[in-house]
Amino acid sequence: MVKVESFQMDHTKVKAPFVRKCGLFLGKKGDTVSKFDLRFIQPNQGVMETSGIHTMEHLLAGYMREKLEEIIDISPMGCRTGFYMVAWGDLTEDAVTDALEYALKMVIGTEEIPAANELQCGNYRDHSLELAKVYAREVLDKGLRSGFYV
Amino acid sequence: MVKVESFQMDHTKVKAPFVRKCGLFLGKKGDTVSKFDLRFIQPNQGVMETSGIHTMEHLLAGYMREKLEEIIDISPMGCRTGFYMVAWGDLTEDAVTDALEYALKMVIGTEEIPAANELQCGNYRDHSLELAKVYAREVLDKGLRSGFYV
Ligand SMILES: [Zn+2]
Ligand SMILES: [Zn+2]
Repeated sequence: MVKVESFQMDHTKVKAPFVRKCGLFLGKKGDTVSKFDLRFIQPNQGVMETSGIHTMEHLLAGYMREKLEEIIDISPMGCRTGFYMVAWGDLTEDAVTDALEYALKMVIGTEEIPAANELQCGNYRDHSLELAKVYAREVLDKGLRSGFYV
Repeated sequence: MVKVESFQMDHTKVKAPFVRKCGLFLGKKGDTVSKFDLRFIQPNQGVMETSGIHTMEHLLAGYMREKLEEIIDISPMGCRTGFYMVAWGDLTEDAVTDALEYALKMVIGTEEIPAANELQCGNYRDHSLELAKVYAREVLDKGLRSGFYV
């Protein structure tokens, strides 16, 4: 494995929300994998509640893949201000932003949380569709294309 | 992208802690990427506190890579019962278990949380090295090789 790039970010010099390519990895046989920071909340100024970020995880898993079938994983950050996404290929921030905007609009129209049951989820009691919708609306209202990072 | 396998798991029929290969992905040029479920807590019977799982995320990022340089990402699950790990290659559960045991032993001996500051972290106030050590000890005491899943 050759790690081609991994971009460090100064968390005090960003303006959320934003979509940021944070890594590009090259496999031995020539495949690439890219990693994105999907940042919902301003670092160190807020967090998503565990119920809301958990529901958002369930929803993004499906909705993001409707637009980007190359996705390998989308998981919440430990800091609860966003998600990391890993996908095949050298994807652009524009393509990922398009997919995230689509997914967040879908979240707002969702009526049932997928896989929020004892068989398919590790903590089926800790969910909030209401909060997930609040977070989706906040990101869409602020706009993913007006955010910045250095 | 061709998704070769993605193994569904019945969360009521597992016994944590365990390391489980949950996906194997094949790139267009022949590289593979594997995905692992590093399960610390019995699903729907407990969670890691946000401070402890966040600190564990910071620590695993470094310690796991000391053994597995193929790692692309390790992120907490939204359910807070474990982590997902994504890495180059068709890694075995044994190799990942070895790396996780190493990492958890290192956690117990850690005296300072790496990157737990405003510049490098999205929520530098929400950390607990003490709790991370408790979780590491619990997993090591129960043993990763006595867990099971179907
Ligand atoms: Zn879940
Ligand atoms: Zn952090």
